Amino acid sequence: MAEEVRSGTRSRENTRARLLEAAAEVFAEVGLGEASVERICERAGYTRGAFYSNFATKDEMFLELAKVVARDRVAAARARVAEIDVAATIGVEASDVAAIIRVLDVIGDDRLSTLLMYEINLHAMRDRDFAVAYAVQEQEMVDEVVQLIEEVVENERLELRVTSLEAARIILAVWGDVSGRAAIAGLDADAARELRSVEVGRVVQLLIERC
Amino acid sequence: MAEEVRSGTRSRENTRARLLEAAAEVFAEVGLGEASVERICERAGYTRGAFYSNFATKDEMFLELAKVVARDRVAAARARVAEIDVAATIGVEASDVAAIIRVLDVIGDDRLSTLLMYEINLHAMRDRDFAVAYAVQEQEMVDEVVQLIEEVVENERLELRVTSLEAARIILAVWGDVSGRAAIAGLDADAARELRSVEVGRVVQLLIERC
Repeated sequence: MAEEVRSGTRSRENTRARLLEAAAEVFAEVGLGEASVERICERAGYTRGAFYSNFATKDEMFLELAKVVARDRVAAARARVAEIDVAATIGVEASDVAAIIRVLDVIGDDRLSTLLMYEINLHAMRDRDFAVAYAVQEQEMVDEVVQLIEEVVENERLELRVTSLEAARIILAVWGDVSGRAAIAGLDADAARELRSVEVGRVVQLLIERC
Repeated sequence: MAEEVRSGTRSRENTRARLLEAAAEVFAEVGLGEASVERICERAGYTRGAFYSNFATKDEMFLELAKVVARDRVAAARARVAEIDVAATIGVEASDVAAIIRVLDVIGDDRLSTLLMYEINLHAMRDRDFAVAYAVQEQEMVDEVVQLIEEVVENERLELRVTSLEAARIILAVWGDVSGRAAIAGLDADAARELRSVEVGRVVQLLIERC
């Protein structure tokens, strides 16, 4: 019985994960409006019943996806910052800072998460309830990036020319803009990462006090 | 006869402008996928015939809109830069730089053009032909912003810490990010302009060589 419950829980988590993955693909491909629950279920290989026992609405699933994308990125950045000797690279060349950013980047389907983030933002601009729920998640994500920046600044004895919140917002803005331009240009994942490492690296240099 | 031709031309331009205005509203409200030619014509008060004698396809109209939004913004920025004594404000307080940005901002329906730009970017990510055509326009717009930056730098004897192209891209990235966040937060036009003037002003300060 216990085993059935355990495997039931595992398979429920798997179902949820597979639905989220399928939804991410469909949302990215055709947008939120065209992405019906039927289409998502078909992609995932599940029934509507499986969908609705995991998610109350399509919007709820969309919000979950936004959370997953944001958390993946912050977690990956955090893991890699722990591995790098930042002090050895700060203060030298833009290419060295670029090297930091390169390893900070999330390995994965970049174009898909970029499309997803644009769809998420658009939906938040049009739907007030979704915007309120999304704002809570977005603030949590920004807070984690701020915390990460403050840890690096303290550990490496750097000085920021702006507040850590301003730094976080500027970095996130440039990161998002480069990702959008890379997706429009049809760059592959490696080329997109390279472009991002150069441009975000440049901004990081600007943010650090140095004359 | 000449007068009929002239008024015919004027009324053709008016029709085109009214269709573009209606399309901007509809695209912003429901997105590109949901925005049918019928819906746009209904909003503008015209027939399909009027649409197709002005635009070959919906995509062509969408591209025209992207051009109009970009040009309006650069033209407004250029006009206002000519009016400001930049030297009197550079080097003092963030609030003064914010004051420059405030007057540089385009007066108009901010949320609508923000929604439009997100839709345009998404469409460019999904449609290769549109992306190619849009890339040409986007490059022209960036070039104009670069030129504007170089003129201000030269006239005010400033020094940039990055290239003028890098400065243009960073400013545009932050500008776009603030506009998106303002639209999501449901800020009115004045509040959005205020937020943008503060955050873009901060970045402008970072970009100018000063220790």
